[in-house]
Amino acid sequence: MHLFDQIQTPTLLINEKQAWENIKWMVEKAARSGIRLRPHFKTHQSAEIAGWFREQGIQQCTVSSISMAAYFARHGWQDITIAFPVNLREMQSLNHLGKTIKTTGLLVECLEIVESLEASLESPAEIWIKVDCGNHRTGILWNDGDGLRNVAQAVRSCKKLHLRGLLSHFGDSYHAIGRSAITTLYQESLNRLQQARNTLLIAGFEAIEVSVGDTPSCSLVDDLGIVDEMRSGNFVFYDTMQLAIGSCTAEQISVALACPIVALHPERNEVVIYGGAIHLSKESHPYENQPSVFGLPALPTKTGWGAPLTGGYIRSLSQEHGVVRLAPEHLSSLKIGDLLMILPAHSCLALQAMRTLKTLDGRIIDTMLSESDS
Amino acid sequence: MHLFDQIQTPTLLINEKQAWENIKWMVEKAARSGIRLRPHFKTHQSAEIAGWFREQGIQQCTVSSISMAAYFARHGWQDITIAFPVNLREMQSLNHLGKTIKTTGLLVECLEIVESLEASLESPAEIWIKVDCGNHRTGILWNDGDGLRNVAQAVRSCKKLHLRGLLSHFGDSYHAIGRSAITTLYQESLNRLQQARNTLLIAGFEAIEVSVGDTPSCSLVDDLGIVDEMRSGNFVFYDTMQLAIGSCTAEQISVALACPIVALHPERNEVVIYGGAIHLSKESHPYENQPSVFGLPALPTKTGWGAPLTGGYIRSLSQEHGVVRLAPEHLSSLKIGDLLMILPAHSCLALQAMRTLKTLDGRIIDTMLSESDS
Repeated sequence: MHLFDQIQTPTLLINEKQAWENIKWMVEKAARSGIRLRPHFKTHQSAEIAGWFREQGIQQCTVSSISMAAYFARHGWQDITIAFPVNLREMQSLNHLGKTIKTTGLLVECLEIVESLEASLESPAEIWIKVDCGNHRTGILWNDGDGLRNVAQAVRSCKKLHLRGLLSHFGDSYHAIGRSAITTLYQESLNRLQQARNTLLIAGFEAIEVSVGDTPSCSLVDDLGIVDEMRSGNFVFYDTMQLAIGSCTAEQISVALACPIVALHPERNEVVIYGGAIHLSKESHPYENQPSVFGLPALPTKTGWGAPLTGGYIRSLSQEHGVVRLAPEHLSSLKIGDLLMILPAHSCLALQAMRTLKTLDGRIIDTMLSESDS
Repeated sequence: MHLFDQIQTPTLLINEKQAWENIKWMVEKAARSGIRLRPHFKTHQSAEIAGWFREQGIQQCTVSSISMAAYFARHGWQDITIAFPVNLREMQSLNHLGKTIKTTGLLVECLEIVESLEASLESPAEIWIKVDCGNHRTGILWNDGDGLRNVAQAVRSCKKLHLRGLLSHFGDSYHAIGRSAITTLYQESLNRLQQARNTLLIAGFEAIEVSVGDTPSCSLVDDLGIVDEMRSGNFVFYDTMQLAIGSCTAEQISVALACPIVALHPERNEVVIYGGAIHLSKESHPYENQPSVFGLPALPTKTGWGAPLTGGYIRSLSQEHGVVRLAPEHLSSLKIGDLLMILPAHSCLALQAMRTLKTLDGRIIDTMLSESDS
């Protein structure tokens, strides 16, 4: 029986070959640019997929929580940066982690955290100062010279902390479209990060690295400039948000949610699928002339899925329902019980919701989320 | 040590007493209105919370998937309606369910599904025809007389299927605000559903029940009119979307996500919490003069949490970060490592993301999602 005939409920499929190609492309770009790739593993949360990076020479990774760091530590990763502000309520877990891996990278942006680390941290840590280059999620503003110098000075005075450099997430790139806009935004943000670095160099701090990381910039900007590290992660899967930005082609999207069709509504050019917010997340983005799409539909093929159907998109999601707009010529070929393959709007959140992946030959790929199930 | 001092990572708290009150209020309203309450259990997905309904006399429930029906069947529920179009790929699971409970309610809206059920279903089922009263998610349009009669006729000719009535979800109520607007919308939708029912009565079908179900209508409409069943579910927790609609007061919201504060940004009246899309979901809604909020912040108290902080809201969520806007007088009392209590935008999706609840005395409440972990 073909794998697809066995699918009963929404199932997140991965095209392993494409994911491998995506990794290879980014590894080669980083090597060509002389930049260390420290991929963000929050996208896949999987020791097996992490292994594909390792087979291509990657020894270091980024994660978004202490529990995620602990999972990858258990799977042999020895150099991990937790790209999230230190959570003081998890000092015990952090100290446990510090004893199990060689290099723990931490983000700080204020004196309180530096003081708490000095008081409580039991193992040495590499410290990255988080810099806000304009997207205002968190970090010290790039032009706040006093803030940067004070935190750097506090770090330098702590025995267990080693000031490694400045780290920023150019998150505004998710609101730009196309290579030219992304490149302009990247250069502006990188100039700001370099300005922050110069502030510290002038103040006498040495060997200050810079680390950047969003997938749109790392995918689209030809010359990434003078940076030491890039932390992009989404590129292993990509998704329709990245497609809309222009970071990837549709062929590069390596995951799709296989969804049973449960109702046909040709009178309004829509079908209803079993596949909702609990499978895809409620993430959406503008696409072509639609203000908000939740993913794009494709048809299953013998070996995977085809190109996104022209004119098709996920119009709305409720808890378990998805409503898919389709062109009449595509809709007329479908019947209830068929599968539609949905390229997700945000693959990181779809993986988080689904917890496992299934390869195109039917093997389950576990993640830290499914490991806790067993 | 106080429960809140032990919280290290985002934790979904439940005020059991308030949840019990919310159930009591809806049970009493249904009894007063002479309407059978068949609460939707997708909100909590928990056998324990389902027990609170049973203790208040409720013997029947609604679920949104066959797996959810199977879970509640294992926990002694014998009368379950699956309020989702029949998924033909799960006939085996459906047949297994049919052998374990007394009454299985199914939704149909087309001849193909009726024919498939007749061919494959091994136990009798109660059939509800899904009617679209204008929100265009799925169902037969209320004024499509031929569609209604044809499906009803097909159901009547099947030995295993018993035509129970017409079921609709007045989902447009989620886009209205206030008792008057919700009541107007409800009456218009109910008129349409009654029109569909008259179509079947005139055609000779007898004892056709009607089932309705959204929480805004069931909370706000004083006179629910001639309906046989209501299927609302969200009211056990409520959330800030329901608060914005006017379905509940802030005090009635019985769940909150306890989130550690990881960064303070008084220069822009914001704090950053450990609490993101993987904890709260990416659901948002308009609130006061903000087009899009992802929840509302409150302060912890000795026994739970206080009222939502005036002027405060969750401005943005990424995978693990939440950015919370606060009035300066509230922000100035907070420090890094403190907890903020976040009333979620959509409690059903927050529960789905978090998988368990913790009571205010520190006990874990399991759900079908955490049961699979053990």
